[in-house]
Amino acid sequence: MAVPADLPKMEYRFLGRSGLQVSAISLGGWLTYGGHVENENTFACMKAAYDVGVNFFDCAEGYSGGESERVMGQAIKKFGWKRCDLVVSTKIYWGRANGETAINNTGLSRKHIIEGVNASLERLELDYVDLIYAHRPDRNTPMEETVRAFNHIINTGKAFYWGTSEWDADEIAQAWRVADRLGLIGPLMEQPAYNMVVREKVEKEFQHLYEDVGLGLTTFSPLKIGILTGKYNDGIPKDSRLGSSDDAFVKMMNKRVGDETWKRDIETVRKLKPVADKLEISQANLAMAWVLRNKNVSSAITGASRPEQVYESVKALAVVEKLTPDIIKEIDDILGNKPAAMVRRF
Amino acid sequence: MAVPADLPKMEYRFLGRSGLQVSAISLGGWLTYGGHVENENTFACMKAAYDVGVNFFDCAEGYSGGESERVMGQAIKKFGWKRCDLVVSTKIYWGRANGETAINNTGLSRKHIIEGVNASLERLELDYVDLIYAHRPDRNTPMEETVRAFNHIINTGKAFYWGTSEWDADEIAQAWRVADRLGLIGPLMEQPAYNMVVREKVEKEFQHLYEDVGLGLTTFSPLKIGILTGKYNDGIPKDSRLGSSDDAFVKMMNKRVGDETWKRDIETVRKLKPVADKLEISQANLAMAWVLRNKNVSSAITGASRPEQVYESVKALAVVEKLTPDIIKEIDDILGNKPAAMVRRF
Amino acid sequence: MAVPADLPKMEYRFLGRSGLQVSAISLGGWLTYGGHVENENTFACMKAAYDVGVNFFDCAEGYSGGESERVMGQAIKKFGWKRCDLVVSTKIYWGRANGETAINNTGLSRKHIIEGVNASLERLELDYVDLIYAHRPDRNTPMEETVRAFNHIINTGKAFYWGTSEWDADEIAQAWRVADRLGLIGPLMEQPAYNMVVREKVEKEFQHLYEDVGLGLTTFSPLKIGILTGKYNDGIPKDSRLGSSDDAFVKMMNKRVGDETWKRDIETVRKLKPVADKLEISQANLAMAWVLRNKNVSSAITGASRPEQVYESVKALAVVEKLTPDIIKEIDDILGNKPAAMVRRF
Amino acid sequence: MAVPADLPKMEYRFLGRSGLQVSAISLGGWLTYGGHVENENTFACMKAAYDVGVNFFDCAEGYSGGESERVMGQAIKKFGWKRCDLVVSTKIYWGRANGETAINNTGLSRKHIIEGVNASLERLELDYVDLIYAHRPDRNTPMEETVRAFNHIINTGKAFYWGTSEWDADEIAQAWRVADRLGLIGPLMEQPAYNMVVREKVEKEFQHLYEDVGLGLTTFSPLKIGILTGKYNDGIPKDSRLGSSDDAFVKMMNKRVGDETWKRDIETVRKLKPVADKLEISQANLAMAWVLRNKNVSSAITGASRPEQVYESVKALAVVEKLTPDIIKEIDDILGNKPAAMVRRF
Repeated sequence: MAVPADLPKMEYRFLGRSGLQVSAISLGGWLTYGGHVENENTFACMKAAYDVGVNFFDCAEGYSGGESERVMGQAIKKFGWKRCDLVVSTKIYWGRANGETAINNTGLSRKHIIEGVNASLERLELDYVDLIYAHRPDRNTPMEETVRAFNHIINTGKAFYWGTSEWDADEIAQAWRVADRLGLIGPLMEQPAYNMVVREKVEKEFQHLYEDVGLGLTTFSPLKIGILTGKYNDGIPKDSRLGSSDDAFVKMMNKRVGDETWKRDIETVRKLKPVADKLEISQANLAMAWVLRNKNVSSAITGASRPEQVYESVKALAVVEKLTPDIIKEIDDILGNKPAAMVRRF
Repeated sequence: MAVPADLPKMEYRFLGRSGLQVSAISLGGWLTYGGHVENENTFACMKAAYDVGVNFFDCAEGYSGGESERVMGQAIKKFGWKRCDLVVSTKIYWGRANGETAINNTGLSRKHIIEGVNASLERLELDYVDLIYAHRPDRNTPMEETVRAFNHIINTGKAFYWGTSEWDADEIAQAWRVADRLGLIGPLMEQPAYNMVVREKVEKEFQHLYEDVGLGLTTFSPLKIGILTGKYNDGIPKDSRLGSSDDAFVKMMNKRVGDETWKRDIETVRKLKPVADKLEISQANLAMAWVLRNKNVSSAITGASRPEQVYESVKALAVVEKLTPDIIKEIDDILGNKPAAMVRRF
Repeated sequence: MAVPADLPKMEYRFLGRSGLQVSAISLGGWLTYGGHVENENTFACMKAAYDVGVNFFDCAEGYSGGESERVMGQAIKKFGWKRCDLVVSTKIYWGRANGETAINNTGLSRKHIIEGVNASLERLELDYVDLIYAHRPDRNTPMEETVRAFNHIINTGKAFYWGTSEWDADEIAQAWRVADRLGLIGPLMEQPAYNMVVREKVEKEFQHLYEDVGLGLTTFSPLKIGILTGKYNDGIPKDSRLGSSDDAFVKMMNKRVGDETWKRDIETVRKLKPVADKLEISQANLAMAWVLRNKNVSSAITGASRPEQVYESVKALAVVEKLTPDIIKEIDDILGNKPAAMVRRF
Repeated sequence: MAVPADLPKMEYRFLGRSGLQVSAISLGGWLTYGGHVENENTFACMKAAYDVGVNFFDCAEGYSGGESERVMGQAIKKFGWKRCDLVVSTKIYWGRANGETAINNTGLSRKHIIEGVNASLERLELDYVDLIYAHRPDRNTPMEETVRAFNHIINTGKAFYWGTSEWDADEIAQAWRVADRLGLIGPLMEQPAYNMVVREKVEKEFQHLYEDVGLGLTTFSPLKIGILTGKYNDGIPKDSRLGSSDDAFVKMMNKRVGDETWKRDIETVRKLKPVADKLEISQANLAMAWVLRNKNVSSAITGASRPEQVYESVKALAVVEKLTPDIIKEIDDILGNKPAAMVRRF
């Protein structure tokens, strides 16, 4: 499928307080690459993303048992993309689902960070990633050990920046405290979920970190597995992933279909429809643009199983300017979840 | 020999204040591998240990003149074990008994630490060990030189953690003091002897280090060369190692047979028999479980010359819960060697 | 063309507060090598420079889209010069004009500094450069990231010293502040334009940095694209570069021909002619010697498209002693731009 | 020539406050190896030294234009000595006398230290030396640059310890001050001349450094080019080096023959003869033993052009105990140059 002619130009944002720029919309591999979508499909999505200016491709050792990294690496080779034009990430914590017996093949020990990164780079067929994430906090490993190990990764040239994923604000602050004490590099970016119905961490908990340590965000789940597009408003369509597949992810998701959170989300999405209609945009674009309106978001990571989904996401870039203070107010009233700002004296 | 069906599940413990987990029971090579036991036998013991969940294999440059490392490395290759599933250690201090003329091929100078580790890795056919120990304190080398050299080993990727073996508490504290001053990594673990009749260091001398620096312990000699199993209660059986072999270790040991310590130990072991009988366990299991009951022990290293000995050790894991406060009190009264707790205000 | 017999001996100066010595006159590649001058010509100029004692060859990733580095590397190989006899530099900031899509292939992020240096070394076919410059300040990248990245380059053996080009004094001081705080190496040298009509930065703005941080200078544009030689006094000669070529640089320059600055400069140059005549030297030599008289200038970088231009520059070394205080006063009166000295109490 | 049967056992001393042990007598290459003595002769001397327990072989980039390093490296290979049994040194400062044009191929800049060490290791055919010396102070290079560069050498595994040669005490103290401030490694050892008639630096100037920074000494010129052996007492014998050769060194030395210092030295040596006779030893042994009696001397480096000279030096080890306080007093009275002890309050 050819790139639509009228797509807005990609926007690039600095990743927190760093000199690295990432595309405001990026492509992530959660469950997708090497998983239920065939490799050819993945290649097509990556190419579509690259062609519209996406430069950041997000991965993790834990995605599809390492297969996501392998396919991403193959795509980079296949398309002959220049390394300096790409921002490639991976994440360390879960190890690979299958394969190792896993006692130490998980967590943020020095052993797993170093062994995990080496294994990821081998699967990616790269000498280094740009970003390396701690995929979860590891409360059983001393913060100093983790901070030192990620600095070791940077010092040995295997990554340029390190960050966190789904850490609490105090854990990020503590990592910086250790880094400052030892003259080491602290975590630059955090990868949280962020969307219209999940906003507490990004808009409240991390509030001071943006200024204090220059935290950047690469957020995932902008559409909350499609709920925010409105496509589940009238039940689960047969041709949607939730309706048609029986892979592990869908099984897990289907358990949530119809629970209290699901019902509340669907109700919210229905109420947002008039706003989208008024702006003459899809609900998917509204939800994505709403994420992008937050300047603390360096990049919104989207998944995609078809090139069209990539193009659809990119359209949201042109929508952001439509989100005037009045519209934002209207949306906030519907969402009813805007966190109160924290105030502090210093 | 097949793995017995009823063996308890292996337990894993964090190695001191680190993110690394070691099996509570581990296999060590003191005198054993490459020494008086044939290589095939060693391979069988390592396989038996691995099959029951042992992930930590302990070695040293000084064991059997380097042969222990060679055989351990061969076993890892032979069985195709994944590197990340193993915790491999070696120790630097003694150099190799045979071979070098030894002026600088011993101790904890920067020269011997670096040359020694390089030689060990070559014998092990590994790129790195997980744990590197200073096999003894070296009171002729400045602590700063030693601390810097072990950090060099970690920084060059040849080990993940460093520790000590048979150091005094004040020496460990001093190493941390130097490390803190220079922003370097201090020693994570100590390897002392620890068993029912040798407990002063572990239970008293190191008491504050567990909290202050997060010291972990990998203890050796849980059965005190078999004495605590009760097998020497009625003299030296002909088919025991002490009775049947005339290697250097046995010669050294035989000098101790019958001396004051030996007699006192044998007497203690005899008194412990009723406790074992009451719990319906072997005295070997009682002794091993008694070591494992101490949560400061990250791993109890055992030797083995037959797979059955490995299985026997593992059985002790199920015994720990039988060591109720009352039983522990009963044992302490028999041992008569419980150190008084040190108290401090801070 | 053979080296003229009567050329003065090359002078070597320490590069700021370092142990490195650079020839007072050096050869730079701005627009020249790989650009409009053919490679053979470039080789001839480099050989002429080397033969008269030039040891410092200045380059940049951004010169002629990387072609300058390639040709410079070829010359070094071709002539079999010993690496230790050369001081080779390159600069990172602009990326290469052609080739990469450039989002992160520019600036002073850790990513571009490391990727840029690697690409430069590949083009130069060298293991390391002596000097690595930040070709411009990057006000979008935190100073700490840039300082750390250049130290990474030094620590990995890819450069011996790092410096800046066209930075402001406060940015250099800030880089040192960050370096001092982290125990890292600060920028040793700055590369500004410096000539009779452009002297504010070198003689006023940087004044305290020479003493405070030991800043060295490698200055460029000693003749301000030839204006100071007097050759444009009566208009643009047809056989000069400005008159005969239509490359991008000339187009850019031709826009400036005749503007206010151009007129003022030409007027100044005309007034300087009697001074040159009195000293019986060319105006080119006067301008070059005037730069060299400043002992804060470690090296004056000149361009050359013919070996004779190299020899002409070197002649200026013999002229410096003719610039007595009286002559300097006379020139300053004509220039009318001598900055007032800053005074400070400490 | 076979090793004499009655030679005393080699003594090993710690090199200053380090864990490295060097033979009290060692072999140095000043002018000797690769120079006027043929290579075969050099091999024979090195083998003789090794066979009597010498483990420290001293060299320098500047000895015989790099040829000394080459021959020393060949000897190590030829005899198949184990690397860990040797303490090999080289020194950086002079560059090689012939070959490079030398602007930066000298001194203690970061460039020359790194390039010089790389070239030395190539000539030695070794991966690392044990000791790397700054062969002279370089007052044109900032101390911080030099300290950082030697630490770079140690961190990249190319040397284990660094030191100085012919530095002043305050320069060594200043190097330590810089090292302490930056958390780096300071210079461990100094290599000064030391013998009966040249003792001021070792016995007075460096006095506090032994305690303050743990300075070790590897001294050279124990016999002051043979003068202290008494062989020039009655003029220059025709079969001595001074009498028979006309190489550059001899020419330089011959200029000194007969000058005031020479005359005073010869007079002193004549007065020492009765002391040697009384002890029934040669004057050479007396002079060497007098150096070795100083416990701040870690190793006395001797030159040798014949194996017998090596054996003769080693004999002095048995003489040290003969130097009783009374004898030392008698010698000091003859020498008349014993420095007064410095006293300080702290």
